[in-house]
Amino acid sequence: VITKDLLVEDVHFRTRYSSPESLAQKALHVNLSDLAAMGATPLFFLLGISVPNTYFESIETFLNAFVDECKKTDVVLIGGDTTKSTDKFFISITAIGTSDSQTIKKRSGANQSDILCVSGNLGYSHLGLIALENDQDGHDLFKEIFLKPVARVKEGKWLSRQDSVTSMMDVSDGLITDLKKLCTASQVGASLNLDHLEFSTDYLASCSVLNLDPYQTALVGGEDYGLLFTVAADAFAALESDFLKTFGYRLKKLGTISSQKIINVFKNNKPITIIEKPFTHFGESL
Amino acid sequence: VITKDLLVEDVHFRTRYSSPESLAQKALHVNLSDLAAMGATPLFFLLGISVPNTYFESIETFLNAFVDECKKTDVVLIGGDTTKSTDKFFISITAIGTSDSQTIKKRSGANQSDILCVSGNLGYSHLGLIALENDQDGHDLFKEIFLKPVARVKEGKWLSRQDSVTSMMDVSDGLITDLKKLCTASQVGASLNLDHLEFSTDYLASCSVLNLDPYQTALVGGEDYGLLFTVAADAFAALESDFLKTFGYRLKKLGTISSQKIINVFKNNKPITIIEKPFTHFGESL
Repeated sequence: VITKDLLVEDVHFRTRYSSPESLAQKALHVNLSDLAAMGATPLFFLLGISVPNTYFESIETFLNAFVDECKKTDVVLIGGDTTKSTDKFFISITAIGTSDSQTIKKRSGANQSDILCVSGNLGYSHLGLIALENDQDGHDLFKEIFLKPVARVKEGKWLSRQDSVTSMMDVSDGLITDLKKLCTASQVGASLNLDHLEFSTDYLASCSVLNLDPYQTALVGGEDYGLLFTVAADAFAALESDFLKTFGYRLKKLGTISSQKIINVFKNNKPITIIEKPFTHFGESL
Repeated sequence: VITKDLLVEDVHFRTRYSSPESLAQKALHVNLSDLAAMGATPLFFLLGISVPNTYFESIETFLNAFVDECKKTDVVLIGGDTTKSTDKFFISITAIGTSDSQTIKKRSGANQSDILCVSGNLGYSHLGLIALENDQDGHDLFKEIFLKPVARVKEGKWLSRQDSVTSMMDVSDGLITDLKKLCTASQVGASLNLDHLEFSTDYLASCSVLNLDPYQTALVGGEDYGLLFTVAADAFAALESDFLKTFGYRLKKLGTISSQKIINVFKNNKPITIIEKPFTHFGESL
């Protein structure tokens, strides 16, 4: 399997608060996350960069950090391209992995009554982004998650091997946006039960300080880089327990897949409306 | 084999005179040329683009042209990424091909006394660039070659299968610059005999109008996208003849490989000096 992602200065990142080291890690893990969604073992990377004069003095640090991170994640940097850029720093990565075509999970496999789950935190990255964009002190955990996401490669490989998992993708554009893609591909809908979401005290405190709605942030904030997947209902309890044993943290149940091709959201058994904005990295808050 | 190239607006191309269609063709063939140098059969492409608002209205034309060109060249576009850009149009391509590891020619295989050859025209593309940059009418052949290069995929495959060919690479940064890379990799030098170069009347006329030295332009002008290769001396005559029969045009003999690790250039048996400037696309003439 092969995947390609672009990161563009002032569209996906800002050099003002993203160090060359964190940028290298993020660039790598955004692509690893795509491979994780396919249950793939990452093998090779190609790195293309276009470097403006303003970034020349940081580029060696960036490249060293990228190579280090490749070693840590057991991938080999096999080539790339380096060019000048007039004013913005561009990063283009191609990631190559291998996965078993027998077990690969597609977006199109979700069935009615399947349980909808996510591995990873929702909204954390967006809190970090908003804190950084607004020069807010504190919120360190969330800033760290935004600046240095860690792809769920092991979880992706494990989930892809489970017969009970019917579909999978990564959450990068915000839960609702990505869920819509999964539902469209599977020709189903979904019913989300927000009572399943348990927010940490830190999360709620940061939402409050940053004046963000915790549910809205969790459902629409982008760059979570978790895995969204569906599980056959009768096998869910066993999978939930195996997941906890294997990874030491709980997967999150979000709701169920329905045959009706719309996404309904409930809280306290009442339907609520989520304002879905197309995800952009900068220029808007939720 | 896999290769990756970036094209950045105002570093590698200008939207002022590169139409979306020609840009699509160029982006594809620049990458095909990398595969050609490895004697590879092109198979798959990934296309990443970052699009500024100023290019929105051209992007559909660009994409349609890219897909058309993929079909024409028998490659399959298997994916990619599309993002916004703040101000410049940015194209990142990954090209995947297959080649026979038994016959692949590297840069490092040139030996003393081998004949140095090129398939393709030298300096034509640079003439086109200079004419376009200076808003000169005419010079249409050269503009066309600059705007819509055609990679020498068939030649690359054929040359890689010839036992007498000892090394190969594509000429993209200018002959002298690329020859230096080949010589360094092979731990040899080269002796170029400029009397081998036969310039067409059109070429000489354009050089004269654009105030460019024909030799300097041929040896240092970039973006030729021909193939530079070396042939064992005793097999050269046969290869030269087979090449002509197979492709209907002559390969160009440029000189010989020497054990002394420098590049000497001769004209009328006298050493001459070529002013080698690091190749940049814009901002300087030769």
